[in-house]
Amino acid sequence: MMLINGQQTDTVNAMDRGLSYGDGVFRTLRTQAGQPLWWQDHFAKLAADCAALSLDCPDAHLLQREVSRVAEAGDGIVKIILTRGVGARGYASSSGQATTRIVLSAPLPSHACAEAPVDITARWCTIKLARQPRLAGIKHLNRLENVLARAEWDDPAIFEGLLCDNSGSVIGGVMSNVFWVKAGELFTPGLHESGVAGVTRSRLLRAAAHRGIRAHIGRWMPDAILDADEVMICNSVIGVRRVAKLDDVTWPPAGWTTTLNIALYENLD
Amino acid sequence: MMLINGQQTDTVNAMDRGLSYGDGVFRTLRTQAGQPLWWQDHFAKLAADCAALSLDCPDAHLLQREVSRVAEAGDGIVKIILTRGVGARGYASSSGQATTRIVLSAPLPSHACAEAPVDITARWCTIKLARQPRLAGIKHLNRLENVLARAEWDDPAIFEGLLCDNSGSVIGGVMSNVFWVKAGELFTPGLHESGVAGVTRSRLLRAAAHRGIRAHIGRWMPDAILDADEVMICNSVIGVRRVAKLDDVTWPPAGWTTTLNIALYENLD
Repeated sequence: MMLINGQQTDTVNAMDRGLSYGDGVFRTLRTQAGQPLWWQDHFAKLAADCAALSLDCPDAHLLQREVSRVAEAGDGIVKIILTRGVGARGYASSSGQATTRIVLSAPLPSHACAEAPVDITARWCTIKLARQPRLAGIKHLNRLENVLARAEWDDPAIFEGLLCDNSGSVIGGVMSNVFWVKAGELFTPGLHESGVAGVTRSRLLRAAAHRGIRAHIGRWMPDAILDADEVMICNSVIGVRRVAKLDDVTWPPAGWTTTLNIALYENLD
Repeated sequence: MMLINGQQTDTVNAMDRGLSYGDGVFRTLRTQAGQPLWWQDHFAKLAADCAALSLDCPDAHLLQREVSRVAEAGDGIVKIILTRGVGARGYASSSGQATTRIVLSAPLPSHACAEAPVDITARWCTIKLARQPRLAGIKHLNRLENVLARAEWDDPAIFEGLLCDNSGSVIGGVMSNVFWVKAGELFTPGLHESGVAGVTRSRLLRAAAHRGIRAHIGRWMPDAILDADEVMICNSVIGVRRVAKLDDVTWPPAGWTTTLNIALYENLD
């Protein structure tokens, strides 16, 4: 089911700036029994991303009601897209332009079900991410780099691709954030120049703090990952997954994925 | 008037990858008496941009007929958007996905009429363009940098903003390419890492060659522009315009804009 500005429809004005310029932001989240999981985190991130692009963010309760309206009865996912609305020709936006609100549901993908294997296989992508501090971290609609990265493989056995920026630093996965553990401490790339700072990444960092696990956010080359005791990817749909194989490198489980997957679903407030 | 996949409508499927990811390309061109100006150039660029993103490009004659169908009776503009079509969730695209074709017309903006002043005022933008060789030159739908750049000013007296990349090199205007003349020779930035390589830019380079004007494509810092005899911007809607004022710097006309504006409309085949 799909709601656009509260109305049930599946089409959007073709002059919407979301289509013309990718001028908007989005979220994908899980729902359980019609309720969004981690709603406060998701709304806070949506509001922050809107603010970064000077986009009017809709009211939290309005959005939450729309998420519940479209959500599947059992487990499912909901995608929220917010755009700068229908615009005149040209890059300039007029003040008072109403944000377009798209809220749509989909069944939980099989790879995200509780029965799906926690171990995944990943590869390094060859495309290098550009560095744009003004857009880094934001889950905006300009995702051609992700599209090009994802087009680098079609082997269904490969679940995710890992990306570096054009300085060679590890940034994250095509659709996920990356974490690794070395000597009992947690590491994840800083996302001030590239990448998307996901809600699950931020929950994982809070979960680590709750459990007294020391976490480091910084800049690392791929070697740091290859040298790790356990490598993980995460997003709001799949939770935490263990990277069991990365191109030709394999790791035995070290237990961190299980620990962090449990911690992630605890109350972190 | 707007045609989407040949049908008169003004809405697009909300699952279109053009909206989800900016996964597509576009063109804006002038029409005269229902015919597109510089059609061969525009179609060649559209086909090249599609190829760069592995997007199926529609047939040239089909598109040209649709442009004529939507075009205003007198002078006007037409925008063509091509996207990777309606997709399943996720960045992966399925093979055989049909390209979405959006063709729409608009009246010629007043700033593009023959009576509009050829001299314009520009400013430097503060945002620095990211460098992504895989996307540079392509007129794709990921245009948030342009949106952020255009949002830097609202003074209607300023017609265009000039942009540098994050190495400090001049790239072009928010909606135009930039040229300058120094000692009788023409200069324009190379666009292998950032920017859009427009059809008018390529026509200007051919026009210069026809007239025996030596042209240089390369990497220059803003100083090169400030030191120029004449600075110009160009695109398919406005032709060539002289930058008479750039922030606090002004230039008297040196005649090049007039010469190149005439050359641009000659037969360059």
